[in-house]
Amino acid sequence: MADPAEAVLCSCAMAIETLIYGIALAGVAVNAAAGVLEAGRKPFDLFGMVVVALAAALGGGSLRDMLLDRTVFWIADQSYLVAAIIAGLATFAVVRVVRLPPRLFLLPDAVGLALFTVSGTQAALALDAPWLVASLMGVITGVFGGIVRDVLCNEVPLVFSGELYATASWLGALLLVGLVSHGVSAGWAALAAGSLVLAIRLLAIRFRWRLPVFSARA
Amino acid sequence: MADPAEAVLCSCAMAIETLIYGIALAGVAVNAAAGVLEAGRKPFDLFGMVVVALAAALGGGSLRDMLLDRTVFWIADQSYLVAAIIAGLATFAVVRVVRLPPRLFLLPDAVGLALFTVSGTQAALALDAPWLVASLMGVITGVFGGIVRDVLCNEVPLVFSGELYATASWLGALLLVGLVSHGVSAGWAALAAGSLVLAIRLLAIRFRWRLPVFSARA
Amino acid sequence: MADPAEAVLCSCAMAIETLIYGIALAGVAVNAAAGVLEAGRKPFDLFGMVVVALAAALGGGSLRDMLLDRTVFWIADQSYLVAAIIAGLATFAVVRVVRLPPRLFLLPDAVGLALFTVSGTQAALALDAPWLVASLMGVITGVFGGIVRDVLCNEVPLVFSGELYATASWLGALLLVGLVSHGVSAGWAALAAGSLVLAIRLLAIRFRWRLPVFSARA
Repeated sequence: MADPAEAVLCSCAMAIETLIYGIALAGVAVNAAAGVLEAGRKPFDLFGMVVVALAAALGGGSLRDMLLDRTVFWIADQSYLVAAIIAGLATFAVVRVVRLPPRLFLLPDAVGLALFTVSGTQAALALDAPWLVASLMGVITGVFGGIVRDVLCNEVPLVFSGELYATASWLGALLLVGLVSHGVSAGWAALAAGSLVLAIRLLAIRFRWRLPVFSARA
Repeated sequence: MADPAEAVLCSCAMAIETLIYGIALAGVAVNAAAGVLEAGRKPFDLFGMVVVALAAALGGGSLRDMLLDRTVFWIADQSYLVAAIIAGLATFAVVRVVRLPPRLFLLPDAVGLALFTVSGTQAALALDAPWLVASLMGVITGVFGGIVRDVLCNEVPLVFSGELYATASWLGALLLVGLVSHGVSAGWAALAAGSLVLAIRLLAIRFRWRLPVFSARA
Repeated sequence: MADPAEAVLCSCAMAIETLIYGIALAGVAVNAAAGVLEAGRKPFDLFGMVVVALAAALGGGSLRDMLLDRTVFWIADQSYLVAAIIAGLATFAVVRVVRLPPRLFLLPDAVGLALFTVSGTQAALALDAPWLVASLMGVITGVFGGIVRDVLCNEVPLVFSGELYATASWLGALLLVGLVSHGVSAGWAALAAGSLVLAIRLLAIRFRWRLPVFSARA
C-alpha cells in the first residue's frame, strides 16, 4: 500500500479485469474477422470461412493451453467461441456487400496482438514456466492463430515474411517476464509490456519497418 | 421403465455397444482408406501413405481428446490404430491392382461422419462441456482428420470447398446437444443425430446440394 | 549383478545419462539447423527462420508429450529450447556467409533420428502404452518435426517421398519394444534400437536405398 499507484490499481482492479476481458473478446473477434478476410481469397464456402475464423482466433491460445496442460480457454469459457463465430459471420456478411480496406483491421489487430501476448505470457508465468518458455508462450498465443490460418489457406505464413509482428510480440513478452522477475506488480508489468508491443507494431506499420528477408538461394 | 422403447434399448444395450464399437472401427478404417486414396495422387512412398491414412483416421479424435484433456482414444485402445494401419495397407494393395471408383467410399464415409460426430459430441457432453463447445467437438471429430490429410498433401482442404459435409456434421451435433438437454436419453438422441447427419449427407450427394462458394476477389 | 555387462552399464549409468542428454540436445540442435536450411529456400525473415527451427526441433517431442499427456519436454527443461534457438541463429549466421553442403547434416541428423526414436518409444513405454502405440510414439518423435517444418514452408513433407527415414525409425522402435517386452534391460535395448536406426539410415544414404514411390494416377 506504500505505492499509491499500486493502490489505485487495486481499487480499480475489477474495472481493469472487465476491461481486459472485453479486450480479450475483442482480440478474438478481430482475429476471426482477419481469418475470414484471408479465407475470402480462396473459393471457400461459409463453413470453411467459419473454420478458418475459429482457427485464426482460437488457435494460438489453444496450442498454448495444450502445451501448458491447462484447460483450453474457450472450453472453460464459451464466450470466446461465440465471439469468434459472430465476428466471422458478421465479417462474411459485410464483405459480401462492401469492400473493407485491409488497413481498417491494423489497429484492432495490433491491440489484439498486445493483449494475446500479455495474457499468454502471464498464463505461463502463473504455472511457473521458466522465463524463455513463458515469453515463447506469449508469442505462440499472439501469432500461432495466424500461422494456422495461412496453412489452412495453403499459403506461406504471412508472419514469416518480414512484418515486424512476432518480433514485437516477443520483445513485449520478454519485457513482461523481466519486469515480473524484478518484482514489478503484474498489472504494471502487463501495461508496460502491452504498450511496448502496441508501440512497436504501430510504428512498424507507420514507418514500414521490416525485418530483412533472407533467402539462401538468391 | 415406463417407456417401452427405452426398455428395449436397455435390454439390447450390449449388442448396441458392440455395434457402435464396430461402426467406430469401420469409420476409422474408411477414413484411413480415403487418406490413402488422397495421398495416392502425390508421389508418396508407402510410409507417407500410412502416415496420411493415420492422420485422416485418427486426427479428428486426437485433437478432440487433446482439447478436452481426455486420454487419446487410440492410446487407450490400440484397436483403432491397428484398424487404421490395416485399412491403409489394404487400400494401398488394392489400388495398385484395380482402380476403385471414388464414389465407392461415399456411403461408408457418410456413416463414419455420422458416427464420429455423435461420439465426439457425446465425449464432450460427458465432460460437461457447454453446448456450443460440445457441438464443435462433434464437428472436429468428424472433419479435422480430413483437413490434416489435405494439409499434409499440400492441398486446400476439400471440406472448405462447398461440400455439405461439415454442415451436416454440425447440424447433427446441435440436434444431439438439444435432445440431451431436453431430457431425451443418450441412446435415442445419438440415433436421431446420427440419422440426421447421414440423411443430409446422402441427400447432398444424391441431389448435389452445395453450399455457395464465396470469393471476395471474384 | 550376474550379468557383468549389466553391471558395467550400471556403474557408468550416470556417464551414459549425461551422454544421452548431450546427444538429445545435439539432436534438437541439428534438427533446428535443418529447419533453418529448409526455411532458407523461402523468403522468410529471421523470426520465420527461428519459428521453423523450433517447430522442426521440438515439434515431434511436443506432439508425443501432448498425446501422452506428459509435461512437454522443453517446458520441463528449458535447455532444449535454448539449444534450438542458438542452433537456429548460428545456422542463420553461418549460411549468410558460406554455403553449407547439404550432406554435412546427414550424419548428425541420422544420430538425432536414432535418439529421438529411442527416447520417444521409451517415454511411451514408461507410461505403459501398448506396443504399437509405443513404437508409433518413437516415429512421431523422430519424424513429426520435419513434417511440421515442411508444412510451414508450404511444401509436401520430404519424409513421404521415398527416403528410408521414417521406416528406419519405425523398425528401430519396434526392435526396442520387442527387446524390452522380452526382458532385455532398457539400456541394452536402447543401444540396439538406436544402432539399428542409425545403421539403416546410413546404409540407405550410402547405397541410395529408397522406398518405391506410388502414384495412383501415373
